[in-house]
Amino acid sequence: MLNFSFCSPTYFEFGRGAEAKTAELVRKFGGTKILFHYGGGSIKKSGLYERITKSLNQADIPFAELGGVRPNPVDSLVYEGIELCRKENVDFILAAGGGSAIDSAKAIAAGVLYGGDFWDFYSGRYIEEALPVGTILTIAAAGSEGSPNSVITKEKGRLKRGAAGEAIRPAFSILNPELTQTLPAYQTAAGAVDIMVHICERYFSNTSEVEVTDRLCEALLLTMISQTPRVIAAPDDYEARANIMWAGTVAHNNLCGVGREQDWASHGMEHELSAFYGATHGAGLAVIAPAWMKFVSKKNPGKFLQFAERVWGVEGVDEGINAFEKFLKSIGMPSSIKEFGANEEDVPMLAEHIGLTEERTFGGYVKLNARDAEEIYRLAL
Amino acid sequence: MLNFSFCSPTYFEFGRGAEAKTAELVRKFGGTKILFHYGGGSIKKSGLYERITKSLNQADIPFAELGGVRPNPVDSLVYEGIELCRKENVDFILAAGGGSAIDSAKAIAAGVLYGGDFWDFYSGRYIEEALPVGTILTIAAAGSEGSPNSVITKEKGRLKRGAAGEAIRPAFSILNPELTQTLPAYQTAAGAVDIMVHICERYFSNTSEVEVTDRLCEALLLTMISQTPRVIAAPDDYEARANIMWAGTVAHNNLCGVGREQDWASHGMEHELSAFYGATHGAGLAVIAPAWMKFVSKKNPGKFLQFAERVWGVEGVDEGINAFEKFLKSIGMPSSIKEFGANEEDVPMLAEHIGLTEERTFGGYVKLNARDAEEIYRLAL
Repeated sequence: MLNFSFCSPTYFEFGRGAEAKTAELVRKFGGTKILFHYGGGSIKKSGLYERITKSLNQADIPFAELGGVRPNPVDSLVYEGIELCRKENVDFILAAGGGSAIDSAKAIAAGVLYGGDFWDFYSGRYIEEALPVGTILTIAAAGSEGSPNSVITKEKGRLKRGAAGEAIRPAFSILNPELTQTLPAYQTAAGAVDIMVHICERYFSNTSEVEVTDRLCEALLLTMISQTPRVIAAPDDYEARANIMWAGTVAHNNLCGVGREQDWASHGMEHELSAFYGATHGAGLAVIAPAWMKFVSKKNPGKFLQFAERVWGVEGVDEGINAFEKFLKSIGMPSSIKEFGANEEDVPMLAEHIGLTEERTFGGYVKLNARDAEEIYRLAL
Repeated sequence: MLNFSFCSPTYFEFGRGAEAKTAELVRKFGGTKILFHYGGGSIKKSGLYERITKSLNQADIPFAELGGVRPNPVDSLVYEGIELCRKENVDFILAAGGGSAIDSAKAIAAGVLYGGDFWDFYSGRYIEEALPVGTILTIAAAGSEGSPNSVITKEKGRLKRGAAGEAIRPAFSILNPELTQTLPAYQTAAGAVDIMVHICERYFSNTSEVEVTDRLCEALLLTMISQTPRVIAAPDDYEARANIMWAGTVAHNNLCGVGREQDWASHGMEHELSAFYGATHGAGLAVIAPAWMKFVSKKNPGKFLQFAERVWGVEGVDEGINAFEKFLKSIGMPSSIKEFGANEEDVPMLAEHIGLTEERTFGGYVKLNARDAEEIYRLAL
């Protein structure tokens, strides 16, 4: 096990009706003038928008609002949010939605306090300070409600990039599984895949002697394997939604990833599919992750035997990967990047766009160069 | 799943040499004048005492010190610590040791800011405020390094009682598995049992639809089952010590216990063994927990089938409990409360001392009255 430090101070309010605590929590964490940031119409249709604004009004908490966050949130809205926060002297950002709204809120929160261009953070600069962020989660997927991470897409150049900093871990997150019961099957399944791949990117590691985090990762994967088909079959299954929601948070606050080398190559490769074809992140991962597994397991089969046995109850490297693929298909996920509009000719461009060359590699479990990435994209065709 | 809130803000510094960060962390969390609180000679023998005091001196952090914490820490030392802190204007408590030193530090931290008798907190009053506490852990067992709990023994009347409050969750905890490598086999095993029973007290629950926390509990139990025999065989096995140490923290910060009814009857019954016979807490649990299981599984077998299958890989309620008992014996734990000096005549007194009557019960998975407790103590003879 490697040395590590870990601190996950986010306050979680979990369960039916939890959003009733919104105003109380905003106050508890120091919000006196807030930006309410959200996506499109879904929180208005569901009545969540009205419940939140009403509760803020009743508590006399003044707020500005900025809606319109789309999946794969973009830099232009972040700039707009930063400007609005400065104009309105906002000291707290409240996001309602999925990972997109939360990631956009985190980018704004960091940008408001920064003298330079917020995109610096998405080009490698660590986020040292940010306004506090609170979240009301409506999709179990990104884990952004408990993580120190954010992913934003720069429209010019279609760059989908991540930023990190303990300062953007949410101060509080409200997790009400009821809010996810209306989510369509495809989005639900894509969210489940995102959660599972967050675990896999930690699980596949060359760090030895990490039994405790291995077992925790396996616990979350087993939970997802048993609960996801339930919500695909019955979207309003509160209990399965609740198990998935907590699994999604624990999967990405890094409790299961401490003390070990991690490998975020699948996420890196998927970001290009979202950036170029608008693929739903989890659906993109459903294609890329098994392709990545097929490629790297040939070079480094070690962990895949354990994955097969403990997670899927089968024996053999390929058998484990096959079981994963079969599972993904069973919950309605795509199996080829062609389904997003990609084709064989795009492959070199996708690999190049990640920024890889012959020498410049990424990944941890197996180091991948540009040629390796091309091969993985081809396996995903 | 039940509604819950969860917040575990403790900062963990984990790994070889982690105690080198002590002074830096004390400063980061606001300590300007500290009480350094510890047990007996072991931290002096190991050189830890010198490393810590040297690092505090080098950082110009003034400190008072109070050693002498014994296993099953007592109220008299807490009173002494409170007085010392007030006299010296201490604003931060640093504890080095196992659960005893940390629990004693927490009691002092709460008592300093309280106008009344600190024992009020151990008689049911919730701890609303306390001085910040930092810990340097030397035994993987109590989980106090990440928990909002403390257990103190009132010498008069031999009352061993717990207190709770988010205010006493440590601000930081330094976890260096090297510091546990010199621990004798018996203490190591007792610590492992304490960790395992912390998980069991959450696992055995009547709350249904808690797959995610069930799986997390099972993950930690499986870790303990595989790693504990390694450290009994080779006490200086760093890697196994590291896995056990992180498991012990996660087992008790309540991440695995959220959203479900819990059952702390085994701990309640063991406290009497520590109070009356000075039993090492984990060794007492090694006798009480299986006796509790035998008793309650007859009334409510439900969860025991899953325990047998998923944790021990066997089929059948009794088979799971037998496997647990066999494991406890294999790591050198006692199997009868007679080994602590208890005998059959003591049983009614022990049950009465918990405070149970025919009507006044405790426990969650199965409610236990005084007669039930007596029967469990008899099963433990």
